[in-house]
Amino acid sequence: MVQYSQRLSRVKGSVIREIFKMMADPEIISLGGGSPAAEGYPLDKVREISDCLLRDHGVAMLDYGLTSGYLPLREAYLEHLVRPKGVEAQVENTIIMTGSGQGIYLVFDVFIDPGDTVLIESPTFLNTINVLRKMDANIVGVAMDEEGIIIEDLEEKIKRHHPKLLYTIPTFQNPTGRSLSLPRRQAIAELAARYDMVVLEDDPYGDVRFRGEPLPPIKSFDESGNVIMLNSFSKTIAPGLRVGAVTAKEEWVQKLELVKQGADTHTATLPQAICAEFLRQGLLPAHLQKVGKIYAERFAAMERGIRQYFPANCEYTRPDGGLFVWARIPGCNTIELNKRAVSEYKVAFVPGQPFFINEDEGLDCLRLNYSSSNVEKITAACQRLGELFASLG
Amino acid sequence: MVQYSQRLSRVKGSVIREIFKMMADPEIISLGGGSPAAEGYPLDKVREISDCLLRDHGVAMLDYGLTSGYLPLREAYLEHLVRPKGVEAQVENTIIMTGSGQGIYLVFDVFIDPGDTVLIESPTFLNTINVLRKMDANIVGVAMDEEGIIIEDLEEKIKRHHPKLLYTIPTFQNPTGRSLSLPRRQAIAELAARYDMVVLEDDPYGDVRFRGEPLPPIKSFDESGNVIMLNSFSKTIAPGLRVGAVTAKEEWVQKLELVKQGADTHTATLPQAICAEFLRQGLLPAHLQKVGKIYAERFAAMERGIRQYFPANCEYTRPDGGLFVWARIPGCNTIELNKRAVSEYKVAFVPGQPFFINEDEGLDCLRLNYSSSNVEKITAACQRLGELFASLG
Repeated sequence: MVQYSQRLSRVKGSVIREIFKMMADPEIISLGGGSPAAEGYPLDKVREISDCLLRDHGVAMLDYGLTSGYLPLREAYLEHLVRPKGVEAQVENTIIMTGSGQGIYLVFDVFIDPGDTVLIESPTFLNTINVLRKMDANIVGVAMDEEGIIIEDLEEKIKRHHPKLLYTIPTFQNPTGRSLSLPRRQAIAELAARYDMVVLEDDPYGDVRFRGEPLPPIKSFDESGNVIMLNSFSKTIAPGLRVGAVTAKEEWVQKLELVKQGADTHTATLPQAICAEFLRQGLLPAHLQKVGKIYAERFAAMERGIRQYFPANCEYTRPDGGLFVWARIPGCNTIELNKRAVSEYKVAFVPGQPFFINEDEGLDCLRLNYSSSNVEKITAACQRLGELFASLG
Repeated sequence: MVQYSQRLSRVKGSVIREIFKMMADPEIISLGGGSPAAEGYPLDKVREISDCLLRDHGVAMLDYGLTSGYLPLREAYLEHLVRPKGVEAQVENTIIMTGSGQGIYLVFDVFIDPGDTVLIESPTFLNTINVLRKMDANIVGVAMDEEGIIIEDLEEKIKRHHPKLLYTIPTFQNPTGRSLSLPRRQAIAELAARYDMVVLEDDPYGDVRFRGEPLPPIKSFDESGNVIMLNSFSKTIAPGLRVGAVTAKEEWVQKLELVKQGADTHTATLPQAICAEFLRQGLLPAHLQKVGKIYAERFAAMERGIRQYFPANCEYTRPDGGLFVWARIPGCNTIELNKRAVSEYKVAFVPGQPFFINEDEGLDCLRLNYSSSNVEKITAACQRLGELFASLG
């Protein structure tokens, strides 16, 4: 028998990808995924744009493209999504990724050796934990409160562990839905400079806001150049396109280009060009407003459902945007409950534990997605979960 | 200054990607790339198919997809490109990749630890060498003749180095254009079984044949399950779609799925679905015939150009398909010549050395692409290169 690589033994399958596979069963209501509202996809516009692109720029859509990405997309991304947020950047500061998941992977590939310390929010995006485990990084969690990362804990851990990198999702964090406060954004940019630490600011959700005022990215306070901003078109346009983008100092963008050559040569051109045209035609603001209305309704339904059906001691977050509510039901074991929820109650959610690095954390927590099911389904799912919780006695 | 990872210091930029960037200069004729003929892209069909897909399956095109790939593509790939070649495989034996470059990367990710020996053809695809260097593999070249890998040399190197994997491009090899003979295909499958070695059979060019009889893949002789077949739609439909596919034993496909989750979640759906429909509608055979005619003409022009303008002692290969001719001009240093060719003669090619692992090999060789320039340009480029060679005195 041929042996697998050692790193493979450290890779766990994604719980969320496993839940995604179950969704073939139409009876199950999934609060487990991270899909946008299907009703909100800009289908007609994408179809129209795609047809024009293939008519007017057919060969460019089908031929090889630059590893750094389709130039009109890099320009449109800067004009519509980077500079308006107070980040100064030129085309040399951006590179397109095959989804922001690839961006996470390749940033770690550029910086992280086995044993290097990487700080993460505790809890955080489980894909990031999986990739860091595979790379044999020393992963250290930083404590959060309702305003995101606690700066005192962050600085203490920087001093103790000399991390090479901090991975953070500052806005509508996955899985908690929490947002980092403005002063803390400034503080993180300062710590990155003072301690010569890379900050990977992963912001796939920030533009999907349904209430409250926008917060500037950490990157907008970055004077040292140590902050890398990572964005995604998965939640703002569509995830099936697999398009993300990075903004960073030019030297780092060149290193990302180097590792991307070996990873997939370049991101598919037609999906990139669809995103570019969508931005260039100025369609994003109205689209985000439409999506925001859907999400606001669905979050409201989830909040009503939790209040009405969940145990009275349930604690949950109230995000101003993004896709997720994070709930805690003291005393529950959500890994066990999830199995019963799927098989007996036909509802899926993601148990809290996999978002933590320690196996004894998050056991009574769960992540609930409100973006991808309609109000009726969310209400029914909350009711079914309420019955499950009640059955525990 | 934050330090990069150690593996980054082992990554070289791709010479070919650098040449691709120069192509912005319309005066330069490139015999350097690996693009199909732009005139051969099935633009109208892709446009029509894409529009139907977005009209009839819009949400599926835009939502998240399975990591293993779009099911209709896996089925169509098996029906049209795998089983007709004598390979028995079910849907569980296939996974879609973001181009076959990702397939190479992820297969190595699953099997190769630092220090593991990987055998390659000498010379071979330089991207593969770059990825193996980055992974700190022990790379050992196997000698070739006009019929591909020399089996005696292969077996000797297997016995001496106990390799985990052999990487081979058996048909219209990159960079040489050579094809492995039928008995040697059988022999490699047998050696893979006898010595418990993985064979990664990379076959992006095999379907692009303009003369001679098709050769069965090594995978068709694979009784041990140790052969992984990797295919690409880049040369048969279009590279900008970034779609490739793997056929292997189910357990290995599952491992590839696991590492692909972290690499890019899944391949963009619309490009996958375009490939699926193109196959399903039975469009590939006529398309390949059309492309074959173009390539036959262009290869003939290149052969005429070499005979007429290159030095009399030039040796070159005469492939039956694929994209490349490999030439040797004894006494030349093609790395130096390439710089002058681009700056003074406005012609690009790829020097031979980067396709070898040793720095003193291939110095008088060059790879010439005949697929992406028309007959006039190929003739002009050969004439200009002839002038350059003549100027050496």
